[in-house]
Amino acid sequence: MHHPQAASRNSVAQAAPDLLARLRARAPRIHCITNAVAQNFTANVLLAAGCVPSMTISPAEIGAFVEGANALLVNLGTFDGERREAAHIAIDVIRHRGKPWVLDPVLIDRSEARAGFAKALLARKPAAVRLNAAEFKALGGTPDRDGALLFAKEAGTVVALSGATDIVAGSGQVAALANGHPHMARVTALGCAASALTAAFIACGEDDWSASAAALLTLGVAGEVAGEKARGPGSFAVEILDALHNLDAAAIAQRAKVS
Amino acid sequence: MHHPQAASRNSVAQAAPDLLARLRARAPRIHCITNAVAQNFTANVLLAAGCVPSMTISPAEIGAFVEGANALLVNLGTFDGERREAAHIAIDVIRHRGKPWVLDPVLIDRSEARAGFAKALLARKPAAVRLNAAEFKALGGTPDRDGALLFAKEAGTVVALSGATDIVAGSGQVAALANGHPHMARVTALGCAASALTAAFIACGEDDWSASAAALLTLGVAGEVAGEKARGPGSFAVEILDALHNLDAAAIAQRAKVS
Amino acid sequence: MHHPQAASRNSVAQAAPDLLARLRARAPRIHCITNAVAQNFTANVLLAAGCVPSMTISPAEIGAFVEGANALLVNLGTFDGERREAAHIAIDVIRHRGKPWVLDPVLIDRSEARAGFAKALLARKPAAVRLNAAEFKALGGTPDRDGALLFAKEAGTVVALSGATDIVAGSGQVAALANGHPHMARVTALGCAASALTAAFIACGEDDWSASAAALLTLGVAGEVAGEKARGPGSFAVEILDALHNLDAAAIAQRAKVS
Repeated sequence: MHHPQAASRNSVAQAAPDLLARLRARAPRIHCITNAVAQNFTANVLLAAGCVPSMTISPAEIGAFVEGANALLVNLGTFDGERREAAHIAIDVIRHRGKPWVLDPVLIDRSEARAGFAKALLARKPAAVRLNAAEFKALGGTPDRDGALLFAKEAGTVVALSGATDIVAGSGQVAALANGHPHMARVTALGCAASALTAAFIACGEDDWSASAAALLTLGVAGEVAGEKARGPGSFAVEILDALHNLDAAAIAQRAKVS
Repeated sequence: MHHPQAASRNSVAQAAPDLLARLRARAPRIHCITNAVAQNFTANVLLAAGCVPSMTISPAEIGAFVEGANALLVNLGTFDGERREAAHIAIDVIRHRGKPWVLDPVLIDRSEARAGFAKALLARKPAAVRLNAAEFKALGGTPDRDGALLFAKEAGTVVALSGATDIVAGSGQVAALANGHPHMARVTALGCAASALTAAFIACGEDDWSASAAALLTLGVAGEVAGEKARGPGSFAVEILDALHNLDAAAIAQRAKVS
Repeated sequence: MHHPQAASRNSVAQAAPDLLARLRARAPRIHCITNAVAQNFTANVLLAAGCVPSMTISPAEIGAFVEGANALLVNLGTFDGERREAAHIAIDVIRHRGKPWVLDPVLIDRSEARAGFAKALLARKPAAVRLNAAEFKALGGTPDRDGALLFAKEAGTVVALSGATDIVAGSGQVAALANGHPHMARVTALGCAASALTAAFIACGEDDWSASAAALLTLGVAGEVAGEKARGPGSFAVEILDALHNLDAAAIAQRAKVS
C-alpha cells in the first residue's frame, strides 16, 4: 500500500497560501447556479476572498455570463426547472471553454429525483464534487479516506467531503483537514459557499486536488479565526467574512491541521 | 365571563423553557415554503434555535422533503405559481402524515389575490396562523384578545398575532406577550422567522396553543437580549441569532411578560 | 460654458439631511423588483433608512402592490421571464399613478440580451438610472461628468453613476460625491440597495436630481461611518445598516464631499 498522506500534508499546507494570493491578484469571475437560500452569503464569501461572483440562473442569459467566467458552480439546493435547464447550458459552455466546474449535490439524500439529477451531472465530469457524508452515501460513496479515493478515481473527479474533519481525495492523493469550528454547521449555506470557494481555487490552480484541499483548508482556518471572536452563529457568519478578507498566508500555514 | 388569563400566564412561562430544551434535543426538521427575502434569515433562525431547516419550493421535490419533516411552514411572501403548487402538495403530505403546518399570510392586506389564496389555505386547517394586525383584518379578524379567541375557535386553529404585544389564542385560551424590542420591526423577515419557529415548537409540543405562545415568547426574549447589545437593526439581526443560540431556560422564565 | 458645480455642491449637501428627515417621517412604501441575491439586504437597507419595502415579483400580485407604493425599483439582476413580465406590469401601474421608478441595469455589460431589455426599459422613462461605469458604457454612455450630463439630457432621466467617486447628473446639473468606503465594493447588493434608496429619496423629494444625489450621499456617509468601525466586509455590511439607522443630519452636512 502506498502512503499518499505524507506528500499531501506538505503540498496542501504549501499550496493554500500561494493559491489564496493568486486568487486575490487575479480576482476570478465565478458564476454560481445556486439555491435561493445561499445566493447572498455565497456572493459575500466570494467577494471577501477576492473573487467576482455572478449569480443569474436565467437560461436566456446564463450562457453569456459563463462565457466570461473562470469557473462555474452548480449547486442543487432549491432546484427547479429553470435551474435545471440553466445548469445544462452552463456546463456546455464551461466545458467547451475548457474551464472547470464544481458540483454541490445539496441534500440529495432527501430526494431521489434530486439524487438522480446529481448522478447525471456527475457524468459530465465536474473538476470536483463538494458534499457531506449523507450526500456522498446517496451517490454510492463510502465517507472515509479509502472510499473517497475510490470514488474519485472511478468518477474521474475530486471528492471534497465536508465534516468535522474534511476529506479531499483525487488523482490518487488524499488529505484530511481538521480545521474549522462547530458553528460552521449552524450557519446556513456555509457548505454551499465552500463549494463556490472550491471552484474559485480550482480556477487559480494547476491541480484540482490540491486546489480543492486548499479551498477547504482556507475556509476552515477562517472558521477557526472567526470562532475565536464569535459569540454565537450570528456573529460567526459575520466574523468568517472578515476573517477570509483579512487572512494572511502565515495564519494558514501555522494553523493547518492536515494529515 | 371566564378568565383564561391566569391559567395562560403560568402555562406559557413554564412551557417555553421545556419546549426549547426538547427542541434542542430533538433537532426537528422544519420544511419551509417561504419567500425569497426570508429564506436565508429563516434558515439561520431555525439553525440558531437548534432545528434542521430545508427550503426547496420545487413541486417535483417538495413531497420527498416534507415526508421527512416534523413540521411545515407555508409563508405567502413573494408568492408565485411554483410556490402555490408546492404549497398544496406539501400540505397534502404533511396532513396525510398527521404532522402540523403553520400558515403565514404575509402582506395579504396588500393584495386581494393573495388574501383569497390565504383563505383557501386556512380551510386546510393549519395548526397555527402567525400574522400581524393588518393581515388579521384582511382575514376578517379583530386584532384584540377577544377577536383572536373568536377567530381561533371558528377557524379551528391557533391565532398568533404579532405586534408590540403579541396575542396568542387557541383552544379557548389566550395569552398576551409583551417581550420583544422595537428593532424587531426593522429587520426584514423576522415575522417570517417567527412563523418558522412556531412550526418548530408545535412539532415538539403536545398542545398547539402553548407551543405557539412559547415560540413567540422565546423569540421575544431573544429579541430583548439582542436589543441590549445591538447598536441598530444591522447588529440586532446578528445578536438575535446569537441570543437564540445561547438562550437558557432561566432567562425565559425571568424575563417572561405574559398576561 | 456654465458652471453647474457651485450650485450643485450646496443644494445636494443641503437637500440630503432634509430629505432623510422627510423619508423617516413619511416611511414611504418602496416596491422592489430585484434579484434574488439582493432582496434581503435591500429590504434591510430600506428598513434601516425608515422605509417600508415590498418585494413580490409575481405578475398576478405585483399590480396590487405597486398601487400602494410611493416608488418602484426595477433591478435587472437574476432576470427571468417572471421578473420581465412583472416589470412591465409594475411600470404601467406606477406611470399611470404618476409616481417615480428607478432602473438598475445590473451587469448588462455581461449579456447582450439583458442590455437590450435595459434599453427598452430606459425608453419608458425612469426618474433615475443607477449603475456603474461598465454598465453605463453598455448603454452607450461615457462615464464622466460631461458624459453623464449628455446622457441624462438625451434620455430625459437622472444618471446616478456609482464608483470611487459617484457622479449624479440630471436637469442640466451634475455633482460628484466622494464619500464612501472601499468595503462598499466587497459587499454584494450594495449597489442594488443604493438604487432602492434612490427610489425612496425621489419619492420624498421635489427634484429627481437632487434627491438622487442626496440618496447616494447619504449612503456614502453611512459607508464612511461604517468603515470606521468595521473590521472587514462582513462587519461592514452590519455596520452600514446601523449607521443608516442612526445617521443624523449634522453628520451628513459635516462629512459631505460634494463637488
